[in-house]
Amino acid sequence: MQKKAVVLLSGGLDSATALAMARADGHEVYAMSFRYGQRHDIELEAAAAVARDRGVAEHRIADIDLAAFGGSALTDPDIDIPETASDGIPVTYVPARNTIFLAYALAWAEVLAADAIYLGVNAVDYSGYPDCRPEYIAAFERMANLATRRGVEGEPVTIEAPLIDWSKAEIIRRGTELGVDYARTISCYQADEQGRACGVCDSCRLRARGFADVGVADPTRYQPGT
Amino acid sequence: MQKKAVVLLSGGLDSATALAMARADGHEVYAMSFRYGQRHDIELEAAAAVARDRGVAEHRIADIDLAAFGGSALTDPDIDIPETASDGIPVTYVPARNTIFLAYALAWAEVLAADAIYLGVNAVDYSGYPDCRPEYIAAFERMANLATRRGVEGEPVTIEAPLIDWSKAEIIRRGTELGVDYARTISCYQADEQGRACGVCDSCRLRARGFADVGVADPTRYQPGT
Repeated sequence: MQKKAVVLLSGGLDSATALAMARADGHEVYAMSFRYGQRHDIELEAAAAVARDRGVAEHRIADIDLAAFGGSALTDPDIDIPETASDGIPVTYVPARNTIFLAYALAWAEVLAADAIYLGVNAVDYSGYPDCRPEYIAAFERMANLATRRGVEGEPVTIEAPLIDWSKAEIIRRGTELGVDYARTISCYQADEQGRACGVCDSCRLRARGFADVGVADPTRYQPGT
Repeated sequence: MQKKAVVLLSGGLDSATALAMARADGHEVYAMSFRYGQRHDIELEAAAAVARDRGVAEHRIADIDLAAFGGSALTDPDIDIPETASDGIPVTYVPARNTIFLAYALAWAEVLAADAIYLGVNAVDYSGYPDCRPEYIAAFERMANLATRRGVEGEPVTIEAPLIDWSKAEIIRRGTELGVDYARTISCYQADEQGRACGVCDSCRLRARGFADVGVADPTRYQPGT
């Protein structure tokens, strides 16, 4: 029987690459996305397109009311998206977001009897996010195997963060080798309703530099005037 | 400033006691409950009554679509509730439930700048649930302090499971000292629409024996004929 993996799929460049790597590692893929109070649904449409494109076994979108907690520029309309890099933990950090996402993935992995959960976190570009660090991923994996029936019965789940110490260029190079269509992905924190990127937010700048560094044409659609 | 705690409140006997202990420890309490595909809402009404009774600062109910994952008698109508004790992990175990609940509590704790999260898990009565064991709680706490801004900045959150190695009688004795009104709580896995207990499920039997052991009158309302 083919081994299974749950893949957290945001619609962005990194998670699309992580999904392709889960497939390349021989997994049947169950993709999971979240509606968590984002400013728009464009990135969920991108996630669905990536999932279709890669032939996943199933793609589920779970509703999470993270906005009720506030505290992040990504879910709180009263906090502006920054257009310049800042020191420390960015205001775009969502409290405990990866922990909530991974907890849902863990529940689904337990029901599916999946061996692995993949996520596209990256500690290089997002060094200010506490829950994108290798020591966090390792601690979640340890907790997960104490939390679940499979873990207790000796069939551990692994938390795979294959991009965690890669540069954006390395991610794009590997994804391109695996045939990822990055035109389908959206990285911008404030894409418009057609999915066009702003070109100025942290995420846009990192993405554009990645394509430039690796010498691949940037397929990103930008808003007019950017 | 008074220190804050998030308390997971199910409407049952254990979490009502944990809430009273959080108050006794000097915390301002933020109570959190979940609508996660339970067979009925009676226990959420009990949670709201307990929260009102104890004067919490706020009580939030978050919607979680755990039923989408299936796999438990508590959320899957095709699995019968057992009326006899069984070896191993019970069918009433919900995959990764405490991990999802604690992840939400962690997000709220981060926004509130709370010092602690209390939950009423118990490893004695529910020894078959992997996520009710002390080693699981310790692993979650370690992960939580790597996951969050406060943890990274050196203000750790503690996961408090004060009932974890207590018998049901010890829990009832302590709660009674603290003035918990157990008539408001519901422990039954299959209470009727008036909140009356079945008297035969695992949870009912443990609760009734607890009141008998400690010599406190059982305030539980039972369904006619039980």
